[in-house]
Amino acid sequence: MVDTVVAKALLGRDEKIVRVDLGARSYDIKIGRGLLEGAGAEIAAVMPGARLAVVADETVAGLHLKAFSQSLKAAGLEHTAITVPAGESTKCFREFERLCDEVLAARLERGDAVVALGGGVVGDLTGFVASAVRRGMAFIQVPTTLLAQVDSSVGGKTGINSRHGKNLIGAFHQPALVLADTAILDTLPLRDFRAGYAEVAKYGLLGDADFFAWLETNWQAVFAGGAERDEAVARSCQAKADVVAADELESGRRALLNLGHTFGHALESAVAYETERLVHGEGVSIGMMLAHEFSQRLGLIGEDTVERVHKHLSDVGLPVRVQDIPGQLPPAETLMDIIAQDKKVSRGALTFILTRGIGEAFVEKGVDPALVSDFLKEKLEA
Amino acid sequence: MVDTVVAKALLGRDEKIVRVDLGARSYDIKIGRGLLEGAGAEIAAVMPGARLAVVADETVAGLHLKAFSQSLKAAGLEHTAITVPAGESTKCFREFERLCDEVLAARLERGDAVVALGGGVVGDLTGFVASAVRRGMAFIQVPTTLLAQVDSSVGGKTGINSRHGKNLIGAFHQPALVLADTAILDTLPLRDFRAGYAEVAKYGLLGDADFFAWLETNWQAVFAGGAERDEAVARSCQAKADVVAADELESGRRALLNLGHTFGHALESAVAYETERLVHGEGVSIGMMLAHEFSQRLGLIGEDTVERVHKHLSDVGLPVRVQDIPGQLPPAETLMDIIAQDKKVSRGALTFILTRGIGEAFVEKGVDPALVSDFLKEKLEA
Repeated sequence: MVDTVVAKALLGRDEKIVRVDLGARSYDIKIGRGLLEGAGAEIAAVMPGARLAVVADETVAGLHLKAFSQSLKAAGLEHTAITVPAGESTKCFREFERLCDEVLAARLERGDAVVALGGGVVGDLTGFVASAVRRGMAFIQVPTTLLAQVDSSVGGKTGINSRHGKNLIGAFHQPALVLADTAILDTLPLRDFRAGYAEVAKYGLLGDADFFAWLETNWQAVFAGGAERDEAVARSCQAKADVVAADELESGRRALLNLGHTFGHALESAVAYETERLVHGEGVSIGMMLAHEFSQRLGLIGEDTVERVHKHLSDVGLPVRVQDIPGQLPPAETLMDIIAQDKKVSRGALTFILTRGIGEAFVEKGVDPALVSDFLKEKLEA
Repeated sequence: MVDTVVAKALLGRDEKIVRVDLGARSYDIKIGRGLLEGAGAEIAAVMPGARLAVVADETVAGLHLKAFSQSLKAAGLEHTAITVPAGESTKCFREFERLCDEVLAARLERGDAVVALGGGVVGDLTGFVASAVRRGMAFIQVPTTLLAQVDSSVGGKTGINSRHGKNLIGAFHQPALVLADTAILDTLPLRDFRAGYAEVAKYGLLGDADFFAWLETNWQAVFAGGAERDEAVARSCQAKADVVAADELESGRRALLNLGHTFGHALESAVAYETERLVHGEGVSIGMMLAHEFSQRLGLIGEDTVERVHKHLSDVGLPVRVQDIPGQLPPAETLMDIIAQDKKVSRGALTFILTRGIGEAFVEKGVDPALVSDFLKEKLEA
């Protein structure tokens, strides 16, 4: 794995490159401290002469748009900036329509590009816009959260939310380039960094026991922002890239990436996506604990494995029990309804990601809903 | 070409099959009189046990939904019917959102399918919905107009209109099956049949002189609805399928299919898509004449070729001059603005489909806008 993560010196910076291998849709993820400064040159190298529409939420625009814009100007790239409100509710039909209109109003042509400067919300929404305008414009991601750098910027999933659930409307649309400036994460609130870290830990838990052990040793350095942070982001991107390359359209193995997500999404939905109570990564953290406890219940793993996962997620400050979510939760029946309507359902049988040990997750398509329901009832009453 | 169009007897009916060869996304177009009756069995053969959402406009629903529904029931296929208003204005963000919501409300899962029973409007809108719900549901087309049977049901282009132009928002999403019942066309108003015929003639003009000559001889039988109609639909689908297979995402040769469309779209836009004045196929007919006249102007073809095209399109009753459009048209400058914003533009240079003779169209990417502008001025004043 590590041999495909190439370290190189660029303009005096250390930069790691993860190649996402998807044939004609292959692209590079570049990772390093201070990449934003040279972003214009990187983009111009991939798309010389392109005109850009840059989408950012108001928070990120205030922090980083000026520097990004200057970098584009320095590279001679014409661009229009479009801002959207911060927050999950921006992933809606109305903003989708507005952004499509604004990209067209900027008279971008097919060889031009739409850029997402932001976290998962802006990346998912903007990617869907890029997929749809003129039936597919080039798309560039400049992820500004840890979650976006290790998860949503890899693999081409884009989308918006529907009244029926999260991410139910969208497209697979691969970016042409991803620039992950790990120094930007210094401006991230600790809670958001932790939430993104849940996805980093997930890559260890689902398929790489060595990486999980490495994180147990090095997580403080990852939080502090040294070379370990770049290493953690690169190994996470590589892990996801490997899975995505093997299964671009999520027909099989890619489902492993949903470790912790079926429970996690149900909890997010149960609190009506109120981020004061629960953000996505926190839902994933609790969801991963539930996936391990449910695997233990089925006799797949022992108490010691569950304890080890519990300890690491707790150490970094992530929530690990449904009771860690402030306020009242709905009953197990409601959570089951949400799970049944979740997109990881096939012909009525429940699909869960279970595990046989650290780094040994697998897809189980025939899970009995009654077992899950009983398990959730106990957990909610615990 | 004809060897890949297989005639076979099914339930006593003559049926032609055109295979659209796109690797894992390959699919069949089945063409024949009375196919609707056996549609349920055909769909069940491709997607056993699938649940369906069937989208139709109010006009088509009144004429054909009952028969289609009975055929689905007879094959044991559960389905929900969703109707939309008839007309181009249905291809909008609001209906896109509503249909996505309704498909989700029907609790369709990934292995289920969305069906378009209708003309190009319903096919384009429904296809985009199918592409977006759960990032891609299976899609089945049952085209009920000649235009939809020979054009929009082949090739996977889906989309809606934006305030900036037609079809500017959408996706490439291939159907799993297309069922073209040519008897349904008996219920089509003559004006709509003629408009669809413009696209049939286009396939001859762009790349198959023999087919154009065959149409000159047989067009009356095609209109009357005999075996010649099935033959014309099948050859048209095969012609489009050949081009699409060679260039699925329209990076090169597929642009040939736009013969007559750059001018045609500009005229449709100029009359604000008022179908009382001009429908798409009529715009294409006038647009094809303009493309031939412009090719003559550039010295590519002679007067006799222009005359031959003019005669055939006039014979079938299609409009051939901008003056055939009732009411006032905007000046050439406005048409040029529309053409410049049209999606067949690359980095400011105009792309046109020109021709060196019947069946010898080609893509010319470097057309001087001033030449087009002068040509249009003359035509508008003629």
